[in-house]
Amino acid sequence: MTVRVFVTLKPSVFDPQGRTIADALHAMGYDGVRDVRQGKYFELDLDADTVDVAKKLADEVADKLLANPVIESYRIEVDEGEKLGSRS
Amino acid sequence: MTVRVFVTLKPSVFDPQGRTIADALHAMGYDGVRDVRQGKYFELDLDADTVDVAKKLADEVADKLLANPVIESYRIEVDEGEKLGSRS
Repeated sequence: MTVRVFVTLKPSVFDPQGRTIADALHAMGYDGVRDVRQGKYFELDLDADTVDVAKKLADEVADKLLANPVIESYRIEVDEGEKLGSRS
Repeated sequence: MTVRVFVTLKPSVFDPQGRTIADALHAMGYDGVRDVRQGKYFELDLDADTVDVAKKLADEVADKLLANPVIESYRIEVDEGEKLGSRS
Protein backbone atom coordinates (compact mmCIF):
# COMPACT_ATOMS: atom_id res chain seq x y z
CA MET A 1 0.00 0.00 0.00
CA THR A 2 1.41 3.38 -0.99
CA VAL A 3 1.16 6.19 1.53
CA ARG A 4 2.20 9.77 0.84
CA VAL A 5 3.66 11.93 3.61
CA PHE A 6 4.01 15.72 3.28
CA VAL A 7 6.30 17.44 5.75
CA THR A 8 6.15 21.23 6.02
CA LEU A 9 7.68 23.79 8.34
CA LYS A 10 5.16 25.16 10.83
CA PRO A 11 3.79 28.55 9.69
CA SER A 12 5.66 30.37 12.46
CA VAL A 13 9.04 28.98 11.36
CA PHE A 14 11.06 31.06 8.88
CA ASP A 15 11.75 29.21 5.60
CA PRO A 16 14.98 30.56 4.06
CA GLN A 17 14.91 28.00 1.21
CA GLY A 18 11.45 29.10 0.16
CA ARG A 19 12.47 32.76 0.50
CA THR A 20 15.48 32.16 -1.79
CA ILE A 21 13.28 30.47 -4.40
CA ALA A 22 10.79 33.37 -4.28
CA ASP A 23 13.63 35.87 -4.69
CA ALA A 24 15.03 33.91 -7.65
CA LEU A 25 11.61 33.86 -9.30
CA HIS A 26 11.24 37.62 -8.85
CA ALA A 27 14.67 38.09 -10.43
CA MET A 28 13.44 35.95 -13.35
CA GLY A 29 10.46 38.28 -13.78
CA TYR A 30 7.78 36.19 -12.06
CA ASP A 31 6.29 38.98 -9.99
CA GLY A 32 3.02 37.05 -9.67
CA VAL A 33 4.67 34.73 -7.15
CA ARG A 34 4.00 36.25 -3.74
CA ASP A 35 5.60 33.61 -1.54
CA VAL A 36 7.08 30.10 -1.65
CA ARG A 37 7.31 27.54 1.17
CA GLN A 38 9.38 24.43 0.64
CA GLY A 39 8.67 21.09 2.25
CA LYS A 40 9.47 17.41 1.86
CA TYR A 41 7.44 14.72 0.19
CA PHE A 42 7.73 10.97 0.80
CA GLU A 43 6.12 8.00 -0.89
CA LEU A 44 6.14 4.97 1.42
CA ASP A 45 5.49 1.49 0.04
CA LEU A 46 4.09 -0.29 3.09
CA ASP A 47 3.37 -3.94 3.76
CA ALA A 48 -0.06 -3.34 5.32
CA ASP A 49 -3.37 -5.12 4.79
CA THR A 50 -5.69 -2.34 5.88
CA VAL A 51 -5.75 1.42 5.61
CA ASP A 52 -5.76 1.67 9.41
CA VAL A 53 -2.56 -0.39 9.76
CA ALA A 54 -0.88 1.66 7.00
CA LYS A 55 -1.98 4.92 8.64
CA LYS A 56 -0.62 3.87 12.04
CA LEU A 57 2.72 2.77 10.59
CA ALA A 58 3.11 5.91 8.45
CA ASP A 59 2.21 8.08 11.43
CA GLU A 60 4.88 6.43 13.60
CA VAL A 61 7.51 6.64 10.86
CA ALA A 62 6.72 10.31 10.14
CA ASP A 63 6.85 11.17 13.82
CA LYS A 64 10.11 9.33 14.54
CA LEU A 65 12.16 9.87 11.38
CA LEU A 66 10.62 11.90 8.56
CA ALA A 67 9.58 15.02 10.45
CA ASN A 68 10.95 17.06 13.31
CA PRO A 69 7.79 17.66 15.37
CA VAL A 70 9.34 20.71 17.06
CA ILE A 71 9.38 22.80 13.88
CA GLU A 72 7.56 20.70 11.29
CA SER A 73 4.08 19.34 10.79
CA TYR A 74 3.08 16.48 8.51
CA ARG A 75 0.09 15.22 6.60
CA ILE A 76 -0.58 11.63 5.52
CA GLU A 77 -2.60 10.50 2.49
CA VAL A 78 -3.23 7.10 0.93
CA ASP A 79 -2.40 6.80 -2.74
CA GLU A 80 -6.07 6.92 -3.80
CA GLY A 81 -6.10 10.51 -2.58
CA GLU A 82 -8.05 9.82 0.60
CA LYS A 83 -6.82 11.97 3.47
CA LEU A 84 -5.91 9.82 6.44
CA GLY A 85 -4.77 12.13 9.14
CA SER A 86 -2.52 14.99 10.08
CA ARG A 87 -0.68 16.44 12.99
CA SER A 88 0.64 19.93 13.46
CA MET B 1 -4.20 31.59 -4.67
CA THR B 2 -2.21 28.74 -3.17
CA VAL B 3 -0.85 26.10 -5.53
CA ARG B 4 0.96 22.94 -4.39
CA VAL B 5 3.74 21.45 -6.52
CA PHE B 6 5.08 17.92 -5.92
CA VAL B 7 8.41 17.08 -7.53
CA THR B 8 9.48 13.43 -7.66
CA LEU B 9 12.29 11.56 -9.31
CA LYS B 10 11.14 9.63 -12.37
CA PRO B 11 10.57 5.94 -11.55
CA SER B 12 13.63 4.88 -13.56
CA VAL B 13 15.95 7.16 -11.55
CA PHE B 14 17.66 5.66 -8.49
CA ASP B 15 16.80 7.48 -5.25
CA PRO B 16 19.68 7.09 -2.77
CA GLN B 17 18.02 9.38 -0.19
CA GLY B 18 14.89 7.23 -0.15
CA ARG B 19 17.02 4.08 0.00
CA THR B 20 18.89 5.44 3.03
CA ILE B 21 15.63 6.28 4.80
CA ALA B 22 14.27 2.78 4.09
CA ASP B 23 17.48 1.21 5.44
CA ALA B 24 17.30 3.37 8.58
CA LEU B 25 13.67 2.33 9.13
CA HIS B 26 14.59 -1.35 8.78
CA ALA B 27 17.39 -0.85 11.32
CA MET B 28 14.79 0.71 13.65
CA GLY B 29 12.65 -2.42 13.31
CA TYR B 30 10.08 -1.16 10.79
CA ASP B 31 10.17 -4.17 8.49
CA GLY B 32 6.73 -3.30 7.15
CA VAL B 33 8.27 -0.49 5.10
CA ARG B 34 9.12 -1.98 1.71
CA ASP B 35 10.44 1.11 -0.04
CA VAL B 36 10.70 4.89 0.34
CA ARG B 37 10.97 7.52 -2.40
CA GLN B 38 11.77 11.10 -1.42
CA GLY B 39 10.61 14.15 -3.32
CA LYS B 40 10.15 17.87 -2.87
CA TYR B 41 7.00 19.76 -2.01
CA PHE B 42 6.33 23.45 -2.67
CA GLU B 43 3.49 25.73 -1.67
CA LEU B 44 3.28 28.73 -4.00
CA ASP B 45 1.25 31.79 -3.05
CA LEU B 46 0.34 33.21 -6.45
CA ASP B 47 -1.20 36.51 -7.46
CA ALA B 48 -3.69 35.00 -9.92
CA ASP B 49 -7.39 35.67 -10.46
CA THR B 50 -8.35 32.38 -12.06
CA VAL B 51 -7.34 28.76 -11.66
CA ASP B 52 -6.16 28.71 -15.28
CA VAL B 53 -3.77 31.63 -14.77
CA ALA B 54 -2.45 30.04 -11.55
CA LYS B 55 -2.01 26.70 -13.28
CA LYS B 56 -0.09 28.25 -16.20
CA LEU B 57 2.20 30.23 -13.87
CA ALA B 58 2.88 27.26 -11.58
CA ASP B 59 3.57 25.06 -14.60
CA GLU B 60 6.14 27.53 -15.95
CA VAL B 61 7.80 27.98 -12.55
CA ALA B 62 7.96 24.21 -11.93
CA ASP B 63 9.42 23.59 -15.37
CA LYS B 64 12.03 26.35 -15.17
CA LEU B 65 13.12 26.32 -11.54
CA LEU B 66 11.50 23.79 -9.20
CA ALA B 67 12.04 20.58 -11.17
CA ASN B 68 14.74 19.18 -13.40
CA PRO B 69 12.66 17.77 -16.27
CA VAL B 70 15.45 15.40 -17.28
CA ILE B 71 15.19 13.27 -14.14
CA GLU B 72 12.14 14.61 -12.30
CA SER B 73 8.42 14.86 -12.91
CA TYR B 74 6.01 17.17 -11.16
CA ARG B 75 2.36 17.40 -10.28
CA ILE B 76 0.35 20.57 -9.59
CA GLU B 77 -2.71 20.92 -7.35
CA VAL B 78 -4.73 23.90 -6.18
CA ASP B 79 -5.15 24.27 -2.43
CA GLU B 80 -8.74 23.00 -2.52
CA GLY B 81 -7.34 19.61 -3.54
CA GLU B 82 -8.42 19.84 -7.18
CA LYS B 83 -5.81 18.33 -9.48
CA LEU B 84 -4.76 20.80 -12.13
CA GLY B 85 -2.24 19.05 -14.28
CA SER B 86 0.94 17.06 -14.36
CA ARG B 87 3.90 16.36 -16.55
CA SER B 88 6.30 13.49 -16.49
